[in-house]
This record gives sequence, C-alpha cells and structure tokens, in this order.
Amino acid sequence: MEKLILLCNDDGIEAPGLQYLISFVKDFGKLVVVAPETGQSGMGHAVTISSPLRLRAHSPIDDIERYSVNGTPVDCVKMALDKVLDRKPDLIIGGINHGANTSVNILYSGTMAIALEGAMLNIPSIGFSSLCYDHNYDMAHYGKWVKTIVEITLKNGMPDSTCLNVNMPHSNEIKGIKICRQSMGYWDESFDARIDTHKKPYYWLRGDFNLYEKPEDSDEFALEDNYVSIVPVKIDLTNYEFLADLTKQYQ
Amino acid sequence: MEKLILLCNDDGIEAPGLQYLISFVKDFGKLVVVAPETGQSGMGHAVTISSPLRLRAHSPIDDIERYSVNGTPVDCVKMALDKVLDRKPDLIIGGINHGANTSVNILYSGTMAIALEGAMLNIPSIGFSSLCYDHNYDMAHYGKWVKTIVEITLKNGMPDSTCLNVNMPHSNEIKGIKICRQSMGYWDESFDARIDTHKKPYYWLRGDFNLYEKPEDSDEFALEDNYVSIVPVKIDLTNYEFLADLTKQYQ
Repeated sequence: MEKLILLCNDDGIEAPGLQYLISFVKDFGKLVVVAPETGQSGMGHAVTISSPLRLRAHSPIDDIERYSVNGTPVDCVKMALDKVLDRKPDLIIGGINHGANTSVNILYSGTMAIALEGAMLNIPSIGFSSLCYDHNYDMAHYGKWVKTIVEITLKNGMPDSTCLNVNMPHSNEIKGIKICRQSMGYWDESFDARIDTHKKPYYWLRGDFNLYEKPEDSDEFALEDNYVSIVPVKIDLTNYEFLADLTKQYQ
Repeated sequence: MEKLILLCNDDGIEAPGLQYLISFVKDFGKLVVVAPETGQSGMGHAVTISSPLRLRAHSPIDDIERYSVNGTPVDCVKMALDKVLDRKPDLIIGGINHGANTSVNILYSGTMAIALEGAMLNIPSIGFSSLCYDHNYDMAHYGKWVKTIVEITLKNGMPDSTCLNVNMPHSNEIKGIKICRQSMGYWDESFDARIDTHKKPYYWLRGDFNLYEKPEDSDEFALEDNYVSIVPVKIDLTNYEFLADLTKQYQ
C-alpha cells in the first residue's frame, strides 16, 4: 500500500521550509499537509482548549492536499488525525523549521512537538530543522539528507514512544549524518524594557542560549563540525538514575 | 540566609490552588509570586516571542509580593528571574494545578513547564497538581504532603537538569508518598464539530486519555491506590537504548 505521510510545521503553511520538505519527500507516498495558518514559533507543545478551531482547505499544489488550522502545530496534528486523514499515517514530519531545535530547545519547539505527538501515538515521526533562521535561505542542498533519513525511517520504523530530532547545519559543505545525544544547555534571558506610545512600560523577550557542555557525541558538537545531527527522542522524562536515591529520601 | 522561593502556576494568579500553595509553604522562606494574569491551561512550554509582555504588581497578601504577567507560565518564570527577583531562587514551585499532570501530560502542562524551566537552570523545582479539576475543591488536606516534599527538597537539593512532578489524589484518604516512573499513554482525540451563528463550521478540542500500561512502579498506579506520586523528571529526552541500533541503520 502507498505510504501516507502527514506534513506539518510551526512557521505556517506558506513558509518556504515546508515547501522544500514537500519537494524532497513527494516521491515517498501520498502527502497531506495540515499546518498552522500563521507562524507559531515558541508555542512548544501548546494546545488550544479554550477557543474554537477552524479547518480551512487550501488549493492543492501538485495534487497534494493542503489544510490550515488557526491554532498551534499540535492542534494541526490532532486535527489531521481526527478530521482530515482517513487512516493512521505511516510517517509524520514536522519542518523544515527555519531555526535550530538542538539541545533542550526541543521543549520550546513546535516542530518537535509535532514529532512528539506522533511518538505518543507510536507513529514514526521526524522533526527537521535548519540552523539558519533566514526564510530566504536556499535549502535545496538539504534534499539529499532529508531523503536518506525518510527512506531509512520508512524502512525500519521506530521504537515505541520515540521520534527523531534532526538538525541541519547552516552550510553547503555538509559532511554526513551523526547519531547523537541531546546536549544540555539553558537560556540566559534579558527582557528588553521599553516604553509604549502611552508611556506605559512593556517587555520583549530576548535571550542568549548557552551550553553546559558540548561532548563529542552531542548534537551541538556534530553540527559545529558540519554534520547533520539526529537525536532519537523518547517521551519518557523519568530520571531513572535518581529514582533509588529519591526513594531513600522519603523512607 | 533565608530561602527565596518563587511561586508560579498556570491557572492564573487568583486561582485557589496557588493560594493553598502559598499557605502551605509560607514558613519555609521568603515567597515571591509571579503568575499569569489569566488561566493558561494547555500552553505547555510556550513562550511569548512575538508580542510585548506587561508586568503588573498586585497587592501583597500577608507581606508576600505578587506580580502578574500577561503571558504563559514560562514567561512568568523568565520574567521573575530577570526582572523581579534580586537573586537566583532556592526553589521554584508551580501549582497547585487544578487537574492531573501525570504520564506524558508533562508535555502539555504549564505547571510542569515551570518546573522544567527551573531544571534547565539547575534550580530545584517542583510542579504540584491535584487530580481534581474543580476550582472549589478543598485542598487543605494536601498541606501535610506539600510541606513534606518541600522540606525534603530544600534539605537535599536535586541533581542537575532535574525537577519533580508531584500529583495528588482526589481523595481525603491519602496513604502516603510513592516515588514513581512516568507511565506511558496517549490522547484519543475527537474534535466536536459545531456550526457558528454565521453558519460556518468550527471545532472544539476534546479527547480521552488512555494508558498503554500501568505498571506498579508508575505514577498512575500509585495515584489509583491513593498515594501521592513523585516522578523525578530529567530534561534529557535522548532515547539512549536506541542510539546503538540507530547508528547501525546509518552505517
């Protein structure tokens, strides 16, 4: 049977990264696009529970069905599975995100929220991100790597509760693919304090991302060395190493 | 030195769960409240990057400073650390949430996003949730358990990148505390399809949560048996068990 592939993103249905993704994977099966109407960066795993959602059909491009939802990336996946697709897809792909989703940023990432939704349902899922934030960036050279990863994933499937976090360097000289672990880091926030036209103060978030470490087997290391990084991500956040010690604390 | 404790929630600064939390922990140190202006359920780890944020001082209650932010729970933590507190807090607490945050729901939870933000900065952090969704629920009997957990956490600290996910049964007959691992589950979504007053269709999210498993060492099992569950949560989502096999697939 032809493979059914759901595509989504967090930069909105018209974002260039999504169009590149479509062009790279269109020969792997039947594609259906369900993506947010507008950019949803920073929405992480948010779901819309307090307001109504609209589902809008867009003109197909190259016979590919396209729909938008006035909500978050996770809303799109849930809507696609319940109201758009007639069966469980064989693969869910988020991206290609215009910007990095390395390290702990998986928690803030709408692109990875898409893949995590798939993992929760044991559907093989991948989030693709580019380290370049410029929407005009030419992603054509990512095609080779995206196709390789999609092909291997469709062939081998994925363990339960697991998805892939793929980040691609901002470079035309990519050396290959490395399987990595997530590096650990944090944001050093400093809100910009400003005054509005009514003389009232407001703040705008800005911050610098810092790494605690960059070991050789981590995503950040691989990317700096111009490799595509793949982190297999599992939605079990239990700190197993701490379980025994914590149990003792409560005895 | 007196302990500095940051309190936040996702049900909004006036939610009863937060007032219970304040009353339970006020003797452990200096409390500062920075919470969303309004309810933020389902916002998960969302951050506000595309619109301005306002920080509003509320009247202190029992000399406890209170501030609201017109944003998400994570916005509140970031704003507190950058603009409200004069030093890194000794503890960050989210809650008490009106509703469960067990199993994989940590990904959707604003309460746990608060704790995860703390974990990212290596600040001991706890998210407290009640399995009761009713804002009028009398939480007084939770005091004993909340105090025990806060006391032990302040005494022992926490490993890097780790926080606690605490859920409390909807019951007055709580038997004790169990240290658990996260159970695995998923949402079975079925959007309600409705017609608006202009005859246009819209959808409203609803769903049923299902478990894949409920082993004896899991949070869901402990709660059903009327224990408070504590899952130590680490923000490293790497699927280490899959690393070797995945590496082979790309050789």
